[in-house]
Amino acid sequence: MHRERFYTLTASCPDRSGIIARVTGFIAANQGWILESSFHSDPGLDGEAARYFMRIEVRADSLSFPLAEFRERFAPIAAELQMDWKISDSAEKKRVVVLVSKQEHCLYDLLARWQSKELDIEIPCVISNHDTFKGFVEWHGIPFHHVPVTADNKAAAYAEVQRLFEDARGDTMVLARYMQILSPDLCKAYPARILNIHHSFLPSFVGAKPYHQAYQRGVKLIGATCHYVTADLDQGPIVEQDVIRIDHSDSPDDMVRYGKDIEKTVLARGLRYHLEDRVLVHGNKTVVFR
Amino acid sequence: MHRERFYTLTASCPDRSGIIARVTGFIAANQGWILESSFHSDPGLDGEAARYFMRIEVRADSLSFPLAEFRERFAPIAAELQMDWKISDSAEKKRVVVLVSKQEHCLYDLLARWQSKELDIEIPCVISNHDTFKGFVEWHGIPFHHVPVTADNKAAAYAEVQRLFEDARGDTMVLARYMQILSPDLCKAYPARILNIHHSFLPSFVGAKPYHQAYQRGVKLIGATCHYVTADLDQGPIVEQDVIRIDHSDSPDDMVRYGKDIEKTVLARGLRYHLEDRVLVHGNKTVVFR
Amino acid sequence: MHRERFYTLTASCPDRSGIIARVTGFIAANQGWILESSFHSDPGLDGEAARYFMRIEVRADSLSFPLAEFRERFAPIAAELQMDWKISDSAEKKRVVVLVSKQEHCLYDLLARWQSKELDIEIPCVISNHDTFKGFVEWHGIPFHHVPVTADNKAAAYAEVQRLFEDARGDTMVLARYMQILSPDLCKAYPARILNIHHSFLPSFVGAKPYHQAYQRGVKLIGATCHYVTADLDQGPIVEQDVIRIDHSDSPDDMVRYGKDIEKTVLARGLRYHLEDRVLVHGNKTVVFR
Amino acid sequence: MHRERFYTLTASCPDRSGIIARVTGFIAANQGWILESSFHSDPGLDGEAARYFMRIEVRADSLSFPLAEFRERFAPIAAELQMDWKISDSAEKKRVVVLVSKQEHCLYDLLARWQSKELDIEIPCVISNHDTFKGFVEWHGIPFHHVPVTADNKAAAYAEVQRLFEDARGDTMVLARYMQILSPDLCKAYPARILNIHHSFLPSFVGAKPYHQAYQRGVKLIGATCHYVTADLDQGPIVEQDVIRIDHSDSPDDMVRYGKDIEKTVLARGLRYHLEDRVLVHGNKTVVFR
Repeated sequence: MHRERFYTLTASCPDRSGIIARVTGFIAANQGWILESSFHSDPGLDGEAARYFMRIEVRADSLSFPLAEFRERFAPIAAELQMDWKISDSAEKKRVVVLVSKQEHCLYDLLARWQSKELDIEIPCVISNHDTFKGFVEWHGIPFHHVPVTADNKAAAYAEVQRLFEDARGDTMVLARYMQILSPDLCKAYPARILNIHHSFLPSFVGAKPYHQAYQRGVKLIGATCHYVTADLDQGPIVEQDVIRIDHSDSPDDMVRYGKDIEKTVLARGLRYHLEDRVLVHGNKTVVFR
Repeated sequence: MHRERFYTLTASCPDRSGIIARVTGFIAANQGWILESSFHSDPGLDGEAARYFMRIEVRADSLSFPLAEFRERFAPIAAELQMDWKISDSAEKKRVVVLVSKQEHCLYDLLARWQSKELDIEIPCVISNHDTFKGFVEWHGIPFHHVPVTADNKAAAYAEVQRLFEDARGDTMVLARYMQILSPDLCKAYPARILNIHHSFLPSFVGAKPYHQAYQRGVKLIGATCHYVTADLDQGPIVEQDVIRIDHSDSPDDMVRYGKDIEKTVLARGLRYHLEDRVLVHGNKTVVFR
Repeated sequence: MHRERFYTLTASCPDRSGIIARVTGFIAANQGWILESSFHSDPGLDGEAARYFMRIEVRADSLSFPLAEFRERFAPIAAELQMDWKISDSAEKKRVVVLVSKQEHCLYDLLARWQSKELDIEIPCVISNHDTFKGFVEWHGIPFHHVPVTADNKAAAYAEVQRLFEDARGDTMVLARYMQILSPDLCKAYPARILNIHHSFLPSFVGAKPYHQAYQRGVKLIGATCHYVTADLDQGPIVEQDVIRIDHSDSPDDMVRYGKDIEKTVLARGLRYHLEDRVLVHGNKTVVFR
Repeated sequence: MHRERFYTLTASCPDRSGIIARVTGFIAANQGWILESSFHSDPGLDGEAARYFMRIEVRADSLSFPLAEFRERFAPIAAELQMDWKISDSAEKKRVVVLVSKQEHCLYDLLARWQSKELDIEIPCVISNHDTFKGFVEWHGIPFHHVPVTADNKAAAYAEVQRLFEDARGDTMVLARYMQILSPDLCKAYPARILNIHHSFLPSFVGAKPYHQAYQRGVKLIGATCHYVTADLDQGPIVEQDVIRIDHSDSPDDMVRYGKDIEKTVLARGLRYHLEDRVLVHGNKTVVFR
C-alpha cells in the first residue's frame, strides 16, 4: 500500500495483442506515474475464450487531469477493448458494514485493524442478530444495530439489513461469523460486494458444523475460506484460504478454537485484497493480484 | 528413530483407570527401559465408548528375556485389558512392495530414501502396469514385475499382484501414484497395510483428475493425502495430509507439477509413520503418534 | 483442554528405568483417572546426562484425596526420583498481567480470547508505558496502570511494574509488544514466568527493527518468536515460533503489517502452552507437550 | 510455463514514468503477443534511487522478426532507458552442471525432474568430490566427473571444476549439497549463475552443522535457503526459502532427515525460478517474479 494518493484501475477484457501497450501508452501520454501493475492472461479451458485481467496504480499527482477526466478520456479505449473496468481513488475511504453474531474473534480483529488504521476504512455501522457486542462496538464510536432474525421474520429482517446498508452508503458487507444465511435476493443485490468467512477449507465441509464434519472424517488439517457470497450456499468465488495442522488429540472444541485463528486472518487478508481492488471476479473464480 | 535395537508395543483398549500403570509396571518389573512412549484417550462422540491408545518403545537389551517371551508374559495383561495389540522388533526390516505407473516422483523419492537408508526397509520388488521404470528399478538391484492391467484382465492382474506380494512376503503395499483402482478383494485382504497417495486434500476432489477439479473450483491451496486403502475409493483412514499455495496464474498443469512435491513428501511421511508403528486405526480414522 | 476439573502434574528428573511405572503406579493405586499424559526422554548431547520430562492430567474427582494430600503423599516418590515437580489445579484461574505499549494487535487479540473465555484466565491489570489503551482496557473492567519509562526513571519504573505485579498476585507477565527492555533484576525475579513476543524468527534479527533487518537481508519469509524473558536480550528459551511468506514487493511497512498477524497468533499459542503447564524449561530450551 | 515457443525479456533500469508503455509499445508495434508480464518498482531505501524491474514473455511466432533482430531493434530503447537487460529463447535448453557430494536427496530429486522433463534442461555432466553416485548418474546417460578436493589440492581442483563447466558450456552451476566451499575466484567468475542450497533458514546458522546449531538454540522450525553463491560464505542473494516444524523430541539426526525434504524442494523451486529467468538480482537481494 502506497502512501501517496493514487488511482487504481482494474479491468478485464477479451485477450488480444497490444492491450498493455494501449493502456499504459494512454497513461504515459498523460504523464501518469505507475506505482504498481499486474497483468494476467487466462487462457480459458475447454474452448472458452481467453480473457485478460489487469490492475494498475497511478500516482494521482502525476496525471495532468483529475479522476473524472481520466474516466472520460479512457472510456473510448475501454470501449475499443470491450473492457469491464473501474477506477477508484485511494483518498476515498471504503465504507465497510460488518455483520456479526455471538463470536468475538473476527469482530475484535477487524476493530483492532480499524483502530490502528492498518485497515484505513470507515465502519459506518455493525449489524447483529444478537446484542452481545453492542457495548463493545459503541465504545468504539460505531453505531450498532440489533436486527434479530427468527424463523418467522427473515424477509423483514433482511429488508432491514439492506436498508441499513443502503443508509450507511456501504461499499462492502462483511459477514464476520454472521451465523445466518442471507436471502437470495440480498445476495443478488450486491454481487462481489459481500464477503463471508466460512470455517472450512472449501469445497470440503459445506454447510453447518464443519469442524464436526472434519473431526468425523479424521482430516489432519483444518481450514477457513473467505469468499464472495452468492445465492448458492458456500459456493461463491473463493478469495482466500488457509489451513492449520491438527491431530488425533484435538476434539471438535479444540478445532473450533484453532479455527478462530485462521478464520480471522483469512477474513482480514481477503477483505484487504477486496478493498485494495486486488480481486477481479471471473465466472465463479477470482483473480487476486496480491 | 533410535539407534539401539528396540521393541515397539502398540495397543488400544477400552479406556479405564490404571492402564498406563499396568503396562509400564510390567515393563519396569522386567527391567525394561522405555525410550519413547505416547498415550491417547479418545473420549468417543455421541455415546461411543472411550478408547485408549498407546505406543511404547522398549530397549531390547534392557529386558531380561527375548521378544517371544515378552509376548507370552504380556498376553494375560493384554487379555485382562481387552487389548488389540502387537509388538515389533526394530531389527526386523519391514518389507515394502511398491506399485507404480508412469509418474516418476514418488518412485525416485522412495528409492533415494531407501538407497541412503533414511528408510531402513527392504523393497523386495516393484510392480507396475507399465514398463517405464524397469531399467531404473533393476539398476538398483530390485526385481521389477510388469503386470499390465486392461479392462478385460483386471481379476487376473490383481490376482497376480497379490501373488507377487505374498511371494515377496510383503508387510506393506505402497501405491506410489499407481493409477489403477485395486479390486475390493485385494483391499480387504490387507487392511491398514496398503498405503495410497491421493493427489488432493481429501475429502475434496475424490476420484479422477483432482487438480482439474481444483482448478475449476478456484481454490487457493491444493493438497495431497496419504491414506489406507479400503474398498471405498479415496474414503480410507487418513494418515497424513499437506497443502501448497497456488494462485490464479497456475494452470492445471502447473498444479500437477506443484502437487508432485507435496505428494512425494506426504507419502514418505505417512509411510514412515506406518513403518514405525506410529499409526493406529480407530474406525475410519487414525491416531498418529508422531 | 478438558471440561472436568483436573490436576496437572509436571516434572523432570534424571532418566532411569521405571519412572512412568513409579508415577502412574502411584496415581493408579489412588484410583486416579489419567486424562492426558506426555513423556519425553532427552538423551543429552556431548556427555550431558539424560533427563526425563513428563506432564500428566488427572481427573480431580477420581482421586480419593484432595490436592494438598496428593502433594504430601507424592513428595517421597519425587524425592526418590530427584524430581523438579509441581502440580496445578484447573479450578484455580491463572492471573496474567499484560504489558503493552502503543501497538494494538496483541492486546485486542488477548482481550478477545479473555472476553470469550477461550483463555480462561484472570487479567488483574494491564500496565503500559503509554496511555493509548487506557479507555479500551478500562471499558473491559480491567484496571489500567500508566507507568511511563524514560531514560532517567528506569529503575523506579521497573520497581513500580514489579510492585503492581506483586499486588496483583500475578502468575505470569506477558509482554504484548511492550517496547521497553526490562531490567535484568526484574527478569531474574520471575524465571520462566515472563513471556515476550519478538517480531523475528529468532535467532535471526535480534534487537531493534527486525523487519528492517529482514528487508535489508532479502529473506523470503518473516517470523515471530514467543520466548521466556531472561537477562540476555532475545536469548531466552523459545516457546513457539511461526513464519509467513513475503516477497520482493513487500516494504518494511508491509512486513510490519504481515508480522502483526503472526505475532499475535504465536504469542497466544505460547501463552496457552504456558498456562496449561505444557512448557518445561531445560537449560535454555523448552520441552513443549502440545 | 507455456507450451508455445516464447522469448523472455528481463530488464531493470532507473525508475521513471512511461517505462512499461515504451517497452510494451515496441512489442505491440511488432505484433508481439505477450503471454505473461511482471513489473516491480523498488522505491529504494535511505536515499537510494528507485529502480524498475520487469519480465515479459512474448510468443515467438507472433513477432514479425527473429530473436537476433529483436535484440538489434530493442537496443536503442534499452539504451535510452539505461537498462540492464537480456532476452532468452525457450527453445534453447539451459545447460545445468550439478555438483554433489555424498548425500542423495537433491541429486535424485533433480534427476527425477529431468527424467520426466518437468525440468526441461540439459545436464551435460555431474561433478563430485566423491564417487558415490558415479553408477547412478552414468546409468542416466550423464557423464560423471570425480574431482577429489583435499586440503592441498583446492586450487587445482576448482580449476578443474571450472574447466569442466566451461567444456560443458554450462549456463548454471547447482551445488546440490556439495560439501565444499568454492574458491572466491570461482564464485566471482559466475555471478548469479551458481545456486547453492544451505541447510538453514539464513541468516540464522551460517556455516557448518546448522542443524546442530538449531538443536542447541531450541528453535521450533528449521529451514533451508537457496541462494546465489558469492565469495562471502552463505551471504549471497537469497532466491527461495522454506521451513518445517520440529519439536523437542527431534534430535539433530531427525532434523537432518526432515531438512532433506525442504532442501530438495527449495532447491528445485529456486532453480526453476532461475532457469525461467524469474530471478533478477538487485544488490544483495533478489526480485523473484513467480
